[in-house]
Formats: sequence, structure tokens, C-alpha cells
Amino acid sequence: MDKISVGLIGFGTVGSGLVKVLNENRETIANRLGAEVVLKRIVDKDTTTDRGVDIGGAIFTDNADDILNDDDIAIVVELIGGTGVAKELTLKALDGGKHVVTANKALLSTFGREIFGAALKKNLTIGFEASVGGGIPVLKSLREGLTANKIESICGIINGTANYILTEMGDKGAKFEDVLKEAQEKGYAEADPTYDVEGNDTAHKLALLISMAYGAYIDLSDIYTEGISQITPTDIAFADELGYKIKLLAVAKNEDGVVSARVHPTLLKKSHLLSSVNGVYNAVFIEGDAVGSTMFYGQGAGMMATASAVAADVIDICRDIISGGKVRVTPLGYSESAMKDRLSIKEMGELEVPYYIRFTAVDKAEVLSKITGVLGEHNISIASVIQEGEVKAEGGSVPLVILTHKAREASLEESIREIEEVEGLLAGKTLFIRVEES
Amino acid sequence: MDKISVGLIGFGTVGSGLVKVLNENRETIANRLGAEVVLKRIVDKDTTTDRGVDIGGAIFTDNADDILNDDDIAIVVELIGGTGVAKELTLKALDGGKHVVTANKALLSTFGREIFGAALKKNLTIGFEASVGGGIPVLKSLREGLTANKIESICGIINGTANYILTEMGDKGAKFEDVLKEAQEKGYAEADPTYDVEGNDTAHKLALLISMAYGAYIDLSDIYTEGISQITPTDIAFADELGYKIKLLAVAKNEDGVVSARVHPTLLKKSHLLSSVNGVYNAVFIEGDAVGSTMFYGQGAGMMATASAVAADVIDICRDIISGGKVRVTPLGYSESAMKDRLSIKEMGELEVPYYIRFTAVDKAEVLSKITGVLGEHNISIASVIQEGEVKAEGGSVPLVILTHKAREASLEESIREIEEVEGLLAGKTLFIRVEES
Repeated sequence: MDKISVGLIGFGTVGSGLVKVLNENRETIANRLGAEVVLKRIVDKDTTTDRGVDIGGAIFTDNADDILNDDDIAIVVELIGGTGVAKELTLKALDGGKHVVTANKALLSTFGREIFGAALKKNLTIGFEASVGGGIPVLKSLREGLTANKIESICGIINGTANYILTEMGDKGAKFEDVLKEAQEKGYAEADPTYDVEGNDTAHKLALLISMAYGAYIDLSDIYTEGISQITPTDIAFADELGYKIKLLAVAKNEDGVVSARVHPTLLKKSHLLSSVNGVYNAVFIEGDAVGSTMFYGQGAGMMATASAVAADVIDICRDIISGGKVRVTPLGYSESAMKDRLSIKEMGELEVPYYIRFTAVDKAEVLSKITGVLGEHNISIASVIQEGEVKAEGGSVPLVILTHKAREASLEESIREIEEVEGLLAGKTLFIRVEES
Repeated sequence: MDKISVGLIGFGTVGSGLVKVLNENRETIANRLGAEVVLKRIVDKDTTTDRGVDIGGAIFTDNADDILNDDDIAIVVELIGGTGVAKELTLKALDGGKHVVTANKALLSTFGREIFGAALKKNLTIGFEASVGGGIPVLKSLREGLTANKIESICGIINGTANYILTEMGDKGAKFEDVLKEAQEKGYAEADPTYDVEGNDTAHKLALLISMAYGAYIDLSDIYTEGISQITPTDIAFADELGYKIKLLAVAKNEDGVVSARVHPTLLKKSHLLSSVNGVYNAVFIEGDAVGSTMFYGQGAGMMATASAVAADVIDICRDIISGGKVRVTPLGYSESAMKDRLSIKEMGELEVPYYIRFTAVDKAEVLSKITGVLGEHNISIASVIQEGEVKAEGGSVPLVILTHKAREASLEESIREIEEVEGLLAGKTLFIRVEES
């Protein structure tokens, strides 16, 4: 039986998961592949900590060159993370003619042109299934399964930490800060949770989905990014009353070649399948012009789920190697000559969706008519109002919630500015949340 | 740009969809593939009906040999259906060195050994993504995306007609017969609905999922198959009261090498994601030992969704051809030497799940104690009972619903037999429905 040698750089949680799955499912994998995947070398700067997994015959050192200079190794798995050393090693591996598998969305979304470009030039593969949606084979599905479709839209819950926090806030009526603290204690959130809760991680993943959907590189600065730290349990309760859930969504929509690319908390109808995606689970909803609506669901993180995706990429590359041909599918699923260097991105001000607005209003009779008056002047029509005198916020104010029909975001922002300038109307900050209609 | 020629046999609904998607997304497909997919010939016995699609430069005849004998054609798409001519043409195409793409689950589940075997021997591909779950790339996900996993279980809603009928029965409280009639009028059900509503179509698809999950051929007779025609709106209402939905599920579970393979109506907790899959939509829930729970959702049928999957298979094969190597992934995802000729199948009598039982009881005080007495003698313990005197069935009888804890199916059947033999207890047939716990 053929043997294909793999080198692993980064022996942390996911790295340990990879070692485990290649060990435990050795026979199943060999039966499927018709060849043996041999983990020949492991590199990590920490060579002393016991990871609790059997590395078999692998040679474990702290020098990445041991892998890069081993001609027998065809595939390098990069699981160190970050955009420094990881970038250097990825480019070196490609330069040395080795395929790369990585879970590093920060690296690929920040340096996509350079890294994907290098792989294309060398006719090598970069497998990065694990970088979006953890164990869910969503990139393969988008790149190969839906390859006959023009992609109309992508809506994803692709950060488990944020989804866990929103789910818990809803279930327990608890505050963001309290749930975050609990999530940190459980290991579902990092000590510095910014990357997850402020939407950056989601934006990195969305950039990769967009590049694959539209065959174009995209700058992270082109993705509007807003996190969930402003959401209160009151918002979740009001949304519930209106028939919605609040989810942190990654959204890409193609409107005649102009792509809306955004990450923000979103009101989703409870009947939408994404509304049923709870806790640390991820799901990506993709609409194609032929296939219609599809959804891909699973664990977006975790040692073994992520390792499942890394291992699938390794096996996929092994299949290319065994078949003896050129690389079969480019990393982003578009031929090199067809890749566009940039996309037309829709301005957020031009967005037209319904909005949920929560005003912190002074508890006076005329407030509602004044606020709706300003909205009306800006052609923003109102679908529902919730004004509950008894739900007092601090300082004698009351939350006033308005659900609008479709409105232009620039007009909405202008209205809110005007409303905030009226003296004696509001007693706190105004929050608005976009509503996803489909 | 390279051109790859395709021949289409069967110019019906899905065939027309394929022509349409290859036309409308010609540029997108070429950008992705780096080559042009040319539909060179179309064959159908009916060459006169206008399909309303532009066939471009394709040559349209009624003679399949025009495709089989055209050396320029590398891929034959078989969309005529059935197991007669379709089988003959598929084998001929393979014998002539052509790859085959088909949506024909009846053919592949009935003659899998022969047809997959022929493809393996000739190192050719049979693409059959469209045969399970319509447009959902679930076969690719299972075969390649989850390839590092031992598959623990598969639960699928994979017949749109049956799911539409159950959804409508639930939403409207309508009877099976009435909803079926309406579905036939809308074109969601065939004039002879047996294949869909009695579970045969679902069993065919399950056979393919099982072969791919476990690398083994399976006889259709090994799949226990029960349809939905016995389900009443009353059952759906009782299930709802108990916290469940009723779905027609295809279930495969691996228990230490013995596989439970069955198609039947199933009570699913409302919180299970599959419970939110409504109408004509399909979804397949797959658990792998590394990845955990995943789900793949989309349209299980329809002209364009199915064509999306057919086209994806065509493009996949084009990628193999362009790469210049051998076929990269076998049709079932296992190497030829690893394919098992059969699987150990769990006897239905040995099944242990909770059960929903609806007795049509005579409205007398002692009935409940007698029935629960018999169940108790067979070690079947009871989780809930619903006995509503006011819900009279015809003839003065009342439905008595019992939800059991996990029980052995053979014991359950024996208990029901004993209960039915007691005089003056029941006034009609007893129905039991299996409960899915996970």
C-alpha cells in the first residue's frame, strides 16, 4: 500500500486532535484512500508537555526546518496560528513544493492574495476547510458541490463563542457580561474575547467564503464588522416578542455584481432554520441560483471536529497525489486567470433592510409621536412598536422598540441622529439591529 | 480553453434543468473549471416536444448509440430513470470508457454491486450526487468531507413528497388522503404515490448512503421499510403534545459493526434540527466519531436543484480529466479492495428505542390498567400516557396513547399481540411509531 508522509507544525489542541484521528481511524482512512497517511514529523516549540496522544513513529522536534527540508514529506499541516511565523512557514512550504493544510483564517483572510497566489503559481493546494465552520465541510460544498451555481447569498453563524453567548443570554435572560464570564470559565471564550465577540473572527471567515463564492480577493477593511457586546437581554426578549431571534451573522449578498459584505447582530425570523442553531454550533446558509436554499451545520470549533476537517484536507491532497495528475481544484475553486483582484462592495449607507431600533426614551406621552415623526420625515415606515411603560430602565427611562419596514441605512442613521438631538426625548444610547428578511 | 464534451440521455425535467444551468452559468463554470463544458449531444425518444430551453449547438437525436459511439464524449449523463434501459446504457457507457453521471437511485441501489463494480474495474467515475437529497451536496460531504470519520449514524429526511404530506397534515390537521390528493394536484406527488409515501424511494437513497458510509454493498431487502400512510392527524397532534414531530426518517446506525438500517415514521424531539425541516425540503443528519453532529439541508427534488447536483458531478469529472491523473475518488469513496460484499444488519426485533403506541381503546375504566399491565409483564416501562375521553374516535372508542421508555421491539410487538387478543379492550387497530432519541 502506498504511503504518503505528512508533517505537522503546531502540536496544540487541534494538532493533538489530528494525531488522534489519524491514529484511531487509520484503518478506515486506508480503506477509503487505498493508501496510508503517515504522520512522519511533528514540530512544536514546546517538546516537553504531554499531549496525551500517541504519536506512534513520528519524529518530534522543535525545528520547522526538519519538516520543510524533508523531501519525503508532501503535505505540511500548519496549526500554529497567527500571521507571523505561520505566514513565513506556509510560504516556505509552498516554495519547497509542499502542499499546505491550515485552519488559519486570520492568515488566509489577511494575506490571501499572496498565499493563494503562491499556491496557484506552484500548482499546489492549500486546504483550509477547518478555517471556516470547524468540522462542517462547507468550503468543499461551496467550492465543489455548488460549483454550477451563481452564489446569491451566504448567511452564516460561524463563531461558536458569540452564538453560545447569545443563546445563553436568551435562555437565561442574563447579561452579556455575565454570560461572557461564564463562557470564559467553561473554556468557550478566550481571556481576551474581542476577536470572537466583536465579529473579527467572523469577518475573517466571511472573507474566505466570499473569495470562494465570487472568485475574488477581498480586503478585510471591506467587510463591515460589528459585534454583540451592545446586545442586552431586553433586546433578545423584545425580538422574541416580535417573532425573531438575534444571531451574529456573516452576510454576503450579490446584487448585480455588487456584494454586500457584513458581520453584525441580526434579527432572524424564528422560522428560519438558522434560528434553531444554538450554543457553540455553527451553520452556513447558502443560496445558489440553481440549487436554491441550502444549509450546512455542525460544530464550529473543538479539538476533534476541527481535526476532522484538517484530516479531510490531508486525505483530499493525498488523493491528488495518488491520482498522479495536476492539482484538481484550486484552493478557492476558480482558475488562476479568472481570479479577480477585488470586488465591488456595497456601501453600508445604501443597505436596505428592515431595522429593529431600541430607544431609551424618557417616559413622557409625546415621545412616541416625536420619534415616529422624525422617522416619517425620512420615509422610514414602521411595522411594529413596543412601548412598555412598566419595563423601566435605570433613571426613569423606558425602552421604546420600533421595527421598521425596509429602509435605507443612511436615512435611518440620519433619523437617529436627529432624534438624539431633540432635548428631553431620550435618556440613553440608541441601538439599532438589522433584520434579515429571507 | 480546453473543452470537454458531454452527452445527455433523457431530456425530461432534470435533463432540461441541466441544459439550462450549463447555459446560464456557462461563464461562471468556465471561470471555476478553467475549461468549457460542452453539451454535445442529447438523446431522448421524444425529439419533438419543446422543452423551453436553448440546446445551443447540441445534436438532438433519439438514438443512444449516437452518444455511446462518439469518442469525443467523455461523460454520459443518464437521466431516463428506471432500471431497464438505464442499466443497459450505463453499463455500455462504462464499458466504452465513459464516465457516467446519474440521478437514478433505483438503479444504483438495486444493481450497486454490478454497476459500481464495473466503474471500479474500468477506473471510471459514476457521479450520483443528485440521487440522494437532490441539490444538497450530501454525498460529496459524506464521501470526502467526513472521510476521516467513522460514521456512527445517519438520519435523513430524504423524500420531499412524504415530508410535504406530514408537514401539511400537521399544519392543517388534515388527513393523509386529503393532503396526498392536494399534493398530487400541485405536482408534489405522483399519480401512483406508493414509491414515495411507502418509503421505497427513501430506502433506495438510504442504501446508497449506507454503502458510502460503510464501504459495503447492501441489499434493499435488508432495509426495513415502512411508509406514512397509517399516520393520522391525531397522531401528529398527540406527538406535538408530547414534544415531538413525526417525520419519515431514513436511519442507519452502526453499533459495533452491526448496522441498523431502516425507514419508518419517527417521533423526533421538536428541538432536533431535523424537526425544523418542513415541506419539500430534505436534510441529512450525520454523526461521525470525530466531527460529531452535522446536518446538510436543501431542496430534495425539483428541476434546477437536481440539475445543480448533476452539473456538479459533471464538473467534478471534468476536473479529473483535466488533471490528467487517474480517477481521484471512487464512486463510494472506498478503494476497490476494501469494499465489503455485505454488512451485518441488525434485526428489527432487536431494536431498542422508545415507542409511541396508539391504541384504539374501548372507553372503559379498566382498559388502561389492563394495557399497562401487559406492557409491564414484558418489561416495557411507560414514560407518558395520554387518555382523553373527549377525543372520541368512531364507534365510541377513544385513542389511548402511550409513550414508552426504551424497549425491545420484539417484546413490544408481543405485548401488542397479547393486548389485541384480550376481548372487549380495543375497538380498532394499534399503531406504534419508533422514537429517535438523540
